[in-house]
Amino acid sequence: MASPLVDVHTHVYLPRYAEVLRSRSAAPRILTQNGEERLVILENEPSGGRPVGPQYWAREEKLRFMDLHGIDISIVSTANPWLDFFEAAEAHTVAKQLNDDMEEYCASSPAYADGPLKRLYGMGLLPLVPGISIDALLGCIAQIKALPHLHGLIMGTRGIGKGLDDEALEPVWKAIADAGLVVFLHPHYGVDSGAWGEKDNGHVLPLALGFPFETTTAITRFILAGVYDRVPDLRILLAHSGGTLPQLSSRLASCIDHDPVVAARLKHDARFYLGKLYFDAVCYGPEELGFVSEIVSRSERYAPGADNSSFVVANRKTGSGRMMFGTDHPFFPPLSSTEKWKSVVENLDAIDTVSGWDKEEKDGVRGGNALKIFGIL
Amino acid sequence: MASPLVDVHTHVYLPRYAEVLRSRSAAPRILTQNGEERLVILENEPSGGRPVGPQYWAREEKLRFMDLHGIDISIVSTANPWLDFFEAAEAHTVAKQLNDDMEEYCASSPAYADGPLKRLYGMGLLPLVPGISIDALLGCIAQIKALPHLHGLIMGTRGIGKGLDDEALEPVWKAIADAGLVVFLHPHYGVDSGAWGEKDNGHVLPLALGFPFETTTAITRFILAGVYDRVPDLRILLAHSGGTLPQLSSRLASCIDHDPVVAARLKHDARFYLGKLYFDAVCYGPEELGFVSEIVSRSERYAPGADNSSFVVANRKTGSGRMMFGTDHPFFPPLSSTEKWKSVVENLDAIDTVSGWDKEEKDGVRGGNALKIFGIL
Repeated sequence: MASPLVDVHTHVYLPRYAEVLRSRSAAPRILTQNGEERLVILENEPSGGRPVGPQYWAREEKLRFMDLHGIDISIVSTANPWLDFFEAAEAHTVAKQLNDDMEEYCASSPAYADGPLKRLYGMGLLPLVPGISIDALLGCIAQIKALPHLHGLIMGTRGIGKGLDDEALEPVWKAIADAGLVVFLHPHYGVDSGAWGEKDNGHVLPLALGFPFETTTAITRFILAGVYDRVPDLRILLAHSGGTLPQLSSRLASCIDHDPVVAARLKHDARFYLGKLYFDAVCYGPEELGFVSEIVSRSERYAPGADNSSFVVANRKTGSGRMMFGTDHPFFPPLSSTEKWKSVVENLDAIDTVSGWDKEEKDGVRGGNALKIFGIL
Repeated sequence: MASPLVDVHTHVYLPRYAEVLRSRSAAPRILTQNGEERLVILENEPSGGRPVGPQYWAREEKLRFMDLHGIDISIVSTANPWLDFFEAAEAHTVAKQLNDDMEEYCASSPAYADGPLKRLYGMGLLPLVPGISIDALLGCIAQIKALPHLHGLIMGTRGIGKGLDDEALEPVWKAIADAGLVVFLHPHYGVDSGAWGEKDNGHVLPLALGFPFETTTAITRFILAGVYDRVPDLRILLAHSGGTLPQLSSRLASCIDHDPVVAARLKHDARFYLGKLYFDAVCYGPEELGFVSEIVSRSERYAPGADNSSFVVANRKTGSGRMMFGTDHPFFPPLSSTEKWKSVVENLDAIDTVSGWDKEEKDGVRGGNALKIFGIL
C-alpha cells in the first residue's frame, strides 16, 4: 500500500450533538443571528462566536475537505467541549448515543482505495462529568472497545471535576490501557482570561497560548501523579504537539529535583515520561516538529539502565515514530473559502522540511504511524 | 582575554530591600519562624515560604557562589517582586535609592582578572506601579543610564497595571532603547493557581509552568501590540529561555493569520519578532537550547525581502548569538548545601552539548555574548 495521509486531529459535531447545541441558551451553543448560525463555545467569547455551517456536522463536507487536501483517512473526534456541560445521567446517555452515532458515521463511509480500510475512523466519548460513577465510565470504555471503527477516545482536561491527577480515575486509565484505546487529550478552557489584558487581540491569545497552556498543565499534573508508573501502557496523544511540555520538560525535571514531595513520588526523571506520550504534528513549523521528535528520543537517556556515561545527541528519527499529522478541521478555516487551507499546507510543508527526518520518518508522520498506533492496520 | 563565564540571570535582595521585606506583614515579606528567616513571596505559598539567608543579600555570598562555579562576572538584578507592592510615590523614591545601592554594590566589587572590568555589574529598577507618572519612569531611565556599572533594568510583566501592551508605556520603550539599556523581563505571578489542582506538588507547577506561561503571555501581548514595529532597537532579554514562546511561535503566527484585527496591526510574521529578542540559557537541557537558537535563526526567513523560494534549515549558530548563560541564583538551591549547584552544572553541561554549536558559539553563550549585548566590553 502506498503511504497514506492520515489526519488524527479532525473534529465533528455529530448531528445529534449539533441539535443539543442549538437547543441551549448558554454557551456552548449554536445560535442564529441575521440568518446565520454562529457557534459560541465559551461565554464572553471575542466577536460573539464564529460562523458555523455544514463543515461542522456533515460527513460529505469532511470528505470534501479530505479530498481537497489529499487526506486518505481521518480519525474523527467530537469537538470540544464534548459532554462537559451535561448532568451526569444525561452525559452517560448521550455518550452512548454519540459513540454509536460515530461508529455509524465511520462504518458507512467510503472504502479507502478500494481496500478493506474505510476513509473514516473515529474516537469515542466518555461521560467525564462530576457525579458520574466509575462503573458508567468503564461501561463506555467497553462500548467503545466493542465498536469496530472506534480506535480511541477524546477527552478534555477536567476529568470528573478534579483534573486528570484525580486518584478516582485510576481504574479508568487501567481500563483504557487494557482496551488498547488511544486517549486524545484536547484543551477547551485555556487559562484565566484575566491574563490576556484589555487590548483587542481577537481569539489569538486564548487559542495560541491558552489552549497549549491548558494541555501542558493537564498532562504535567497527570505525570506528577505518577500514573505512568502504575499504568505504563496507557497511550495518550497530546493535541497541538504537546502544547509547551516539550520546551519545559528539563525545567520541570529541575523543579522536581528541588521538591522532595514530588521527587519521592516518581520513579523516573520527568523527561523519561515524555517518551511515553504521542504528539500530533499540529504546530505549523518544521523546527517545532523536529524539536518535539528530539525530546521524545531524549527520553531514552532517562530510561532505567540507560548508559549516561557520555552524552549522545538525541536522534530525531526515533522520536518521529510517536508523531502524527493533523489538521484541526473544521476549526481555523481560511478567511476566504474554497481554496486549500493555509494551515494544512503549512503543517504538511513543516513535515516535509524537518531537518533530520528522511522519507521514512516523514511518511510515518504523514500516516503510517497513525495506522499502527491506532491499530487500524 | 580568555573567554569568561558571565551570569546574566542572578538575583539579589539588596540590604535596603531585605529590610523592607522584614518590615511587612503581608507577602512579599521575610518573617522569622523558630529562629529562622523565611521568605514568603506570594500569599498562600506552598510550605509557608522558603528559608532565606545571607545568600539573598550579602555580596560576599554572591562572590563565593561565583567562585565555586567558575563564574567570572555577574550582571545582578533585584529579585521579584521588585517594587510592585509599593504606592507610586514610595516606589519612585525606593527605585532611585536601590539603583544607587546597586551601583555601589557593583562599583566597589573586585576587579575581574586584574583588568579594567569588575566582577559585578547590575541592572536597575523602574517604579512600574499604577499611578506613577511617565516622567518619573523616564527620570529613572536617565538615572540608570548615568550609573556606570548598570547596563540594563529588570521588570515584571504588569507594566503600570495594564501589562506591557499598554500604550502609555510607548515613551518608556523609546527611552530605554535610546539609552541602550537591556530590559530583563522576568515573571513573578504565574497564572491563576486554580489551574494547579488539589494535589500537593509543592512549588513545581507554579515554577515549572506558571513562570514560563507568564513570561510568554507578557511578551506575546507586547509583540501583538506592534511595539517592535515602532521601537525596533529595543532589546528585551527573556527569562528562562523565553518561557514557551519559541515552541508556540508558529502556532502564534497561524492564529494571527486567522484574526484580521491583529494581522492588520503587525508589519511582520510573528516569527520575525523572535529574532529581535534575547534569551537566557536557563532551561537545563541542550535540546531546549538548540531549539531556541534555531527559532532565533529562523526569524531571518521572515525578514523583509528574505528569499523564501526554497526552504533553508535554520542555522543554530547565528541564533546562539542572542543567548546568554544564567543561574537563577540564589533561588533553587540544592537540597544539601556546600556542593556545586546541580542546576548550574546542568545549565553548563547543556551549553557544552548543544548539537550544532561549536566552541565559538558555546563561548559566546557562556559569556562573550553577554559582554557585547550589555555593552560591558
